Amino acid sequence: MLQQEIRHELLAIVGNEYYKDDAQALVTHSYDGTPMLQALPDGVIYPANTEQVSAIMKVLNKHRIPIIGRGSGTNLCGGTVPVEGGVVMVMHRMNRILEVDLENLAAVVQPGLITKSFIAHVESLGLFYPPDPSSMAISTIGGNIAECSGGLRGLKYGTTKDYVIGLEAVLASGEIIRTGGKLMKDVAGYDLTKLLVGSEGTLAIITEATLKLVPPPKFKKTMLAMYKDLYGAARTVSKIIENRIIPSTLEFLDNATVRVVDDFAKLGLPLDMEAILLIEQDGELEVVERDIARIEEICRSEQAHSVSVAESPEEALKLLTARRSAFTALARLRPTTILEDATVPRSKIAEMVLEINRIAQKHQVTICTFGHAGDGNLHPTATTDARDQEEIHRVEAAFEEIFEAAIRLGGTITGEHGVGLVKSPYLEWKVGSAGIEVMKAVKQAFDPHQLLNPGKIFAKQSRKRVVLQHG
Amino acid sequence: MLQQEIRHELLAIVGNEYYKDDAQALVTHSYDGTPMLQALPDGVIYPANTEQVSAIMKVLNKHRIPIIGRGSGTNLCGGTVPVEGGVVMVMHRMNRILEVDLENLAAVVQPGLITKSFIAHVESLGLFYPPDPSSMAISTIGGNIAECSGGLRGLKYGTTKDYVIGLEAVLASGEIIRTGGKLMKDVAGYDLTKLLVGSEGTLAIITEATLKLVPPPKFKKTMLAMYKDLYGAARTVSKIIENRIIPSTLEFLDNATVRVVDDFAKLGLPLDMEAILLIEQDGELEVVERDIARIEEICRSEQAHSVSVAESPEEALKLLTARRSAFTALARLRPTTILEDATVPRSKIAEMVLEINRIAQKHQVTICTFGHAGDGNLHPTATTDARDQEEIHRVEAAFEEIFEAAIRLGGTITGEHGVGLVKSPYLEWKVGSAGIEVMKAVKQAFDPHQLLNPGKIFAKQSRKRVVLQHG
Repeated sequence: MLQQEIRHELLAIVGNEYYKDDAQALVTHSYDGTPMLQALPDGVIYPANTEQVSAIMKVLNKHRIPIIGRGSGTNLCGGTVPVEGGVVMVMHRMNRILEVDLENLAAVVQPGLITKSFIAHVESLGLFYPPDPSSMAISTIGGNIAECSGGLRGLKYGTTKDYVIGLEAVLASGEIIRTGGKLMKDVAGYDLTKLLVGSEGTLAIITEATLKLVPPPKFKKTMLAMYKDLYGAARTVSKIIENRIIPSTLEFLDNATVRVVDDFAKLGLPLDMEAILLIEQDGELEVVERDIARIEEICRSEQAHSVSVAESPEEALKLLTARRSAFTALARLRPTTILEDATVPRSKIAEMVLEINRIAQKHQVTICTFGHAGDGNLHPTATTDARDQEEIHRVEAAFEEIFEAAIRLGGTITGEHGVGLVKSPYLEWKVGSAGIEVMKAVKQAFDPHQLLNPGKIFAKQSRKRVVLQHG
Repeated sequence: MLQQEIRHELLAIVGNEYYKDDAQALVTHSYDGTPMLQALPDGVIYPANTEQVSAIMKVLNKHRIPIIGRGSGTNLCGGTVPVEGGVVMVMHRMNRILEVDLENLAAVVQPGLITKSFIAHVESLGLFYPPDPSSMAISTIGGNIAECSGGLRGLKYGTTKDYVIGLEAVLASGEIIRTGGKLMKDVAGYDLTKLLVGSEGTLAIITEATLKLVPPPKFKKTMLAMYKDLYGAARTVSKIIENRIIPSTLEFLDNATVRVVDDFAKLGLPLDMEAILLIEQDGELEVVERDIARIEEICRSEQAHSVSVAESPEEALKLLTARRSAFTALARLRPTTILEDATVPRSKIAEMVLEINRIAQKHQVTICTFGHAGDGNLHPTATTDARDQEEIHRVEAAFEEIFEAAIRLGGTITGEHGVGLVKSPYLEWKVGSAGIEVMKAVKQAFDPHQLLNPGKIFAKQSRKRVVLQHG
């Protein structure tokens, strides 16, 4: 618990109702979507507006108390676990859509807004906000910005970064900065907007975002292609792109994932396939029909065992929902589910999946792989049991080798989940020691007293890691 | 001239042929595309590869000599004028396309590559690199990255930033960093790639870039719409976007620009129009035809005086070439041409053009305005004479008011040309003093001895500004 003096300063800003440090509040905010990580904060605060965020930052800065910004805590990298204590700042009260500007195709929103409700709102106005992380029914725009969330539509439409064109943010000093605006072009100084996106709450607290919207696709079609040969599926992915077709979704599920998803969603999928591709194209009717026909041809030329186009939007939705349920379905198998995020150039997908299988076998662990094949962003997922220390060590050893393989194939340790706590020991593998030094210097430039989400991105010897049981 | 010791160290790296400090070399590299700015460097160096860049940086860092990276020097913000002396590093020897990866739709290139030759090469492979700054026949990819160049296709396709997915760069210390890769998703630490794009050579020297390529549009159509009423043209711009159509090009020329361009390109345009829109759509045939038909309707509904669709690719090319010639055509009028870059949300274009006209009249200066209406990026251009100090003061006073108006309308001081020397006094108007402080801290993090392109982006009292005569 914070000293009384500091508590009083915080209570004076937000009122009694919005600063909590009872056991329930502290435990609730001691973990996030990441398994096996927990650390108690000293307090939890719920600001109502930017001025309160600034006033809170000034108090915490004065007393050198860490601050951890938090949306819904759905991240999978330990990004919001308060490993060095401090105050968790929950942004849920700042959840309004401030403006949808139809002339400039831009929206101004607060960080606590739930992503899916934002998407639904702009769709009701005939517009489109493409980033669609699997967590979108729960996660917030602010959290998506902090982690630079991706999703199923990333291949064609890009990720959160591509849609954030302006920010208001509060620095560690409490000062408020504004970056960008309703502008498609702005080169006035360094691009702080894109620097803050994906900075995982370590550089500033985002209090407002200006988001780019695009015209919605008029039509879409969904199809499934099944393969007895993994390479056939991987070659299909490369060949579609080589044929200058960029589908809106191009998802991969391996045999193990198909079995689990089918059991969960009762789709009646064949269980003897090595790989299934779920492919969607959107746009103008003629273009979608032509692309889907061409993709069908490509699938068949790569010896797909079967290819089927969804007959109706309901059937398409059912397939997509099944894919989105992969994490949930896998989580039913065993007490602990560790979903990872290794990413490779798309031409290396088959190699990477085979590497994952080889590594899993070597360490005698169960790893199912699914993910966004079109952009090489795979989610090898281990089903395990955190109570079994010996097995957990084997899982961790396997993931370490998986990260190593991704880097070796020209990939990265994280495509869309962030570094957080979980991947910080591996960051240097991707960016090198000179890269780490530059990033640390940038961190120091924004946050000289290391108060913003400390312990994240950069590995520290001092990090606490408390293994608890979930699920 | 540098001390003999330092000269010898540099000569030992690149050989006699590739370090020059004779009068011709120094004068040639004392200015760039920006009028009225000149300062002599101490030397000019031409590295052959990344290792040489690193070795040169180490020497210059040790002796605390400024270094100014330079491509073709076409920038319009004084970005490569060596205002604090030092060594200009010309990247022309590092001009190779290292790889075009058809499976991953990515290219790896060196910074000295001429943009237009790169575009032509990827087009010959059936691919598309959209950023098309007007300087592209001369400017380099490295220069485009340093300034985050835009162009006519920015509205639909984005700018240079959207296509740079990986970089190799040499830090002030001489250390080499690599960022990103052939990856559509990568969130391993801060996004140094996007931070370096548009950093104007003040954070690192870029030695290699990985660029995203896209499938080329299959078809395009070009049209002209002429208006006696400026507001009709501006409303057309907003209405096209509101109708969920994003044209590949949506250019605006005011009456003064039309007169000059017509005289230059002999197009036989009517000279009594207040505004002309040059509109292009690309994509699949059906979509292009439908969009162009709808745009025609919108133009007519906004009282366009005439609307004409180019009958042939040759006619379309002629129109586009005429638009691209605007700067050249204007430059013939008087000895000095100052092309500016104020940008506003696209809904504010009419207001901004009227403001520019009012301000020009108030200061009794000639300012023609053209630019990328679709993304609000206008190029108010003064034709003047640098020998007439009194007139130049009036021009500068007018531009100061123009920047102020752009900011007031929610815009920015530069959409695609960069801050450099010319706009550094105005940067605070856009980003605020807290924004400037953060940017300075980032600069300090990368370049603690202020050696990389000093005097740029951040206004200094100490800056030298030598007014010379060009043209």
